Amino acid sequence: MRAATIQDGKLAVVEHPDPSPGHGHLLVRVRAAGLNGADLHQLRGGYPAPPGSPQDIPGLELAGEVAAIGPGVLGHQPGDRVMALVGGGAQAELALVHERLVSPVPETVTWPAAGGFPEVFTTAHDALFSQCGLRAGERVLVHGAAGGVGTAAVQLAANAGALVTATVRNPEHHRAVADLGAERVVLPEEMGDTGPFDVILELVGAPNFPANFDVLAQGGRISIIGTGAGGRIDLDLRQLMARRARLFGSTLRSRPLEEKATAARRIETHVLPALAAGRIRVPVAATYPLDQVEEAYERFRAGGKLGKIVLEV
Amino acid sequence: MRAATIQDGKLAVVEHPDPSPGHGHLLVRVRAAGLNGADLHQLRGGYPAPPGSPQDIPGLELAGEVAAIGPGVLGHQPGDRVMALVGGGAQAELALVHERLVSPVPETVTWPAAGGFPEVFTTAHDALFSQCGLRAGERVLVHGAAGGVGTAAVQLAANAGALVTATVRNPEHHRAVADLGAERVVLPEEMGDTGPFDVILELVGAPNFPANFDVLAQGGRISIIGTGAGGRIDLDLRQLMARRARLFGSTLRSRPLEEKATAARRIETHVLPALAAGRIRVPVAATYPLDQVEEAYERFRAGGKLGKIVLEV
Repeated sequence: MRAATIQDGKLAVVEHPDPSPGHGHLLVRVRAAGLNGADLHQLRGGYPAPPGSPQDIPGLELAGEVAAIGPGVLGHQPGDRVMALVGGGAQAELALVHERLVSPVPETVTWPAAGGFPEVFTTAHDALFSQCGLRAGERVLVHGAAGGVGTAAVQLAANAGALVTATVRNPEHHRAVADLGAERVVLPEEMGDTGPFDVILELVGAPNFPANFDVLAQGGRISIIGTGAGGRIDLDLRQLMARRARLFGSTLRSRPLEEKATAARRIETHVLPALAAGRIRVPVAATYPLDQVEEAYERFRAGGKLGKIVLEV
Repeated sequence: MRAATIQDGKLAVVEHPDPSPGHGHLLVRVRAAGLNGADLHQLRGGYPAPPGSPQDIPGLELAGEVAAIGPGVLGHQPGDRVMALVGGGAQAELALVHERLVSPVPETVTWPAAGGFPEVFTTAHDALFSQCGLRAGERVLVHGAAGGVGTAAVQLAANAGALVTATVRNPEHHRAVADLGAERVVLPEEMGDTGPFDVILELVGAPNFPANFDVLAQGGRISIIGTGAGGRIDLDLRQLMARRARLFGSTLRSRPLEEKATAARRIETHVLPALAAGRIRVPVAATYPLDQVEEAYERFRAGGKLGKIVLEV
């Protein structure tokens, strides 16, 4: 099989031996695989794949057809349309996935949309609901709302009855983010005039502090999901106490099988029905064939896009 | 009635009109009232009593007998032995308390112990269990474990099957804190050799950071309850994410009636049986009569004590 491959900090498409599915695993013929910030991080050498995942093939999410099943697989057949979050190795013609980590791809969903769905929707859902316990009627602020996780978060929160304010740096995307369900879309520097918020989803990083605390409601929660613009903040613990604030940090990649499988079941229960019905969608900014993986990463790195960059395989 | 009273940042015992219980309220003849860090903070002008509480009479916790009941009181009679967390006004001969905020004082518990119980045990229980979700078998680090909240936290965690490590600055108290249930008691500067911990209770403040993150387990929780030694930290959000850490800030005083009442019910269910049976106790470092309120505050301010300073009224 051919796969995007990291060699000396650069990407190339390289021939690898076809993988063979072990006990409980599926071999998936990848049709689409999204790019994520973690891929760039890994390319720079800072975010190695967890043990058991391909170390040199990037890609944290994929969609495709089951090509073969390993021994002990109970619930899947060759030909099934599946999508999954993986520890690495998604940006390839073939990939191995444990059968408890895949979810079905609804018939109404295209391959690029399915290939750009798992990472960002699982991340956003886990942060908003599993960590922050967001409920209908609460007020949520999504920073960096035009990106992959941002567009997922705006839709998930609005779909669950929360009132969404979004910050988006590029004014060209304000209208589109409002169309995803945000009641209000502002520039980052305008956030001081918003609030209070019960939940803040931080996808940008340090520059939004300490203003995040100024707009946080009593008992509010902040989930830190992205720090691309900086990771160090000066935190006043007394302010944290006075606000009765809660600050969560999280990553998906390092989690054990059982937690990732639980997250997949939550997505199937709480998100797939809305995705299948078209009430939630995956904004895809651009797709690239596998052979143009370098161009795809270049586009991803440039920023300013609305939604996902996806490789079609 | 006579009451400790804040006048120009100093304390004196001053005569006040006797308060009269309104709808749903009890008039309590105070027998004992503990001192807390928040009292010092209030004395310095930094922590005003919430609306509806006496502004000039300090004291956040009390124990005594019901002297009279207001209209609409359903569950209490004059003579009942009660204790309660209050928004202020406890360090007086008489105090008003909403009947949903009082808990019974077990017969086996002395007045000084009961008067020093509500604030620190409610604070510690709320932080360990309601916020951090501490469960049997988990490893917990309690900083400042010889103080009021610390001695409560060590006992509550050990009583619930957690494995407790404590930091105590004064070596004289290491033996006593171990006797309260800590498996290990170390000096603060020795914390680097401990861990990992699922839960850290921070009662001291900034100086324990960033070391707290070094000893925090994956998915660990830190509850910030005290910042007497400093409140500003340099926080690396990427470290928070990589550890999947959660940071909670909390105070009790500003909470609405319903939350304080819920906290009181939790204490009655989860803590009072152990207190009544003597499995949990309130270490009282010293008691002072109301007339010596200044001496009591002086002793409290000096630090280095084991457990509570309590006024006997």
